[in-house]
Amino acid sequence: MINASFLQFAPVLADLDLTISIIENHFKKLKNSNLLVLPELANSGYNFISKKMAVQSAEIVKKSKYFEFLIDFCKKQNIFIVSGFNEKEGSILYNSSILLGPKGYIGKYRKMHSFFNESKFFQKGNLGFPVFKTEIGNIGMLICYDWMFPEVWRILALKKADIICHPSNLVLPYAQQAVPVHALINKVFTITANRVGTEGNLSFTGKSLICNPLGEVLAHANEKDETICTAEIDISIVRNKKITPKNHIFKDRRIDEYGELFK
Amino acid sequence: MINASFLQFAPVLADLDLTISIIENHFKKLKNSNLLVLPELANSGYNFISKKMAVQSAEIVKKSKYFEFLIDFCKKQNIFIVSGFNEKEGSILYNSSILLGPKGYIGKYRKMHSFFNESKFFQKGNLGFPVFKTEIGNIGMLICYDWMFPEVWRILALKKADIICHPSNLVLPYAQQAVPVHALINKVFTITANRVGTEGNLSFTGKSLICNPLGEVLAHANEKDETICTAEIDISIVRNKKITPKNHIFKDRRIDEYGELFK
Repeated sequence: MINASFLQFAPVLADLDLTISIIENHFKKLKNSNLLVLPELANSGYNFISKKMAVQSAEIVKKSKYFEFLIDFCKKQNIFIVSGFNEKEGSILYNSSILLGPKGYIGKYRKMHSFFNESKFFQKGNLGFPVFKTEIGNIGMLICYDWMFPEVWRILALKKADIICHPSNLVLPYAQQAVPVHALINKVFTITANRVGTEGNLSFTGKSLICNPLGEVLAHANEKDETICTAEIDISIVRNKKITPKNHIFKDRRIDEYGELFK
Repeated sequence: MINASFLQFAPVLADLDLTISIIENHFKKLKNSNLLVLPELANSGYNFISKKMAVQSAEIVKKSKYFEFLIDFCKKQNIFIVSGFNEKEGSILYNSSILLGPKGYIGKYRKMHSFFNESKFFQKGNLGFPVFKTEIGNIGMLICYDWMFPEVWRILALKKADIICHPSNLVLPYAQQAVPVHALINKVFTITANRVGTEGNLSFTGKSLICNPLGEVLAHANEKDETICTAEIDISIVRNKKITPKNHIFKDRRIDEYGELFK
């Protein structure tokens, strides 16, 4: 059994130092967790007023103050962290998610599906859908609007993800209904860390949630408060994809009949 | 706008005449509907005690008493009907769904994913995932356990289904949570006609439902009563797959990144 958590909070737009101090305060309340998920773009905020602001608040992963801050916490607390990250590589920005652990950097994912104005700032993901083996389980990542694409939950589950971490800045309320079903139909755990608060004309919808492979919500936040929530999860139950003695949800797929139609 | 309905009821195992008389009574209560969906295997019941019973209660589509009964009703009432159908072709049985309209037979679908003991009786589907153009909209069909496979809802939506009709004999309660999300993420209407009652050691879970493309339940039944429910639906709203001025849920798919991973 492991303890899995999310931190629902409001990063401060383009003010990393203030954001880190807010996260630090929340971290003081975190006890005995093995995995913590933070929202999308937690090092920068979301609703940039210009490309310049987006670039100035972006960081190179391994040269990042935010990265160093999280790594330090992972080592001290023996915890894994997934966080949304405004990533700079050369002159290009990516809306990324990083996975860190007690031994340091593990890997990253770059958001595949751009929502609304994001394409003004970010290039779409180009690193596929990686699943990282860790001592607490196999971890996959999706970011915010990715939730709407059943393909990507399926891909991560087929690649043996046990837990799908889902940093988000959701402005609509639909994902919170859908994510438990993605957990159910793929038999995985999910952790959606959404943000709260308002930036310009955007209000974020909170209601972060942790789901089990029966589509049940194990822990959830409300729509406005900054909070850490934790649920105990048993990774072993997602590795058995049988739902009856004769039904295996992956082997039952009719690849022969539906392959071409996805093109 | 059209009126879409389901009939939730209990077919009588291997007694078509009695089943038809029950359906006839329900039909008297149906008013001004354009589309009615009946449960899986509505001409035979589900939990056969032998292969012989399954074969004896199967019918050839166009030589079927049940088919004639439904066609007659379609013509008189100017209605479209989707119904689960124990189909015989040569010596082979299929767990099928037929689509009928005021002008007669339109087409059929054969269930792709076999649940538990169904493979004792039925061969798996071999007709792909057809979508039929009708004057009330484009109609696709799935049957019961097919609900668990996000691939097949997606295929039907990509093939321009407006309404996915889902005759069912559900023994678990999960589909009723998942179907609204399939409607939401594919922007389609769904009509799940589940059955009620008990056959041998199986109890069916009712709670048939009609969903709109926002994942909202427009009409639903309870877990035990035989009933017809109807909802008014506007097909035109599912033909626009844009959810923001910059987001089209099909065009946003990253086929370049996830094609191969489905194999």
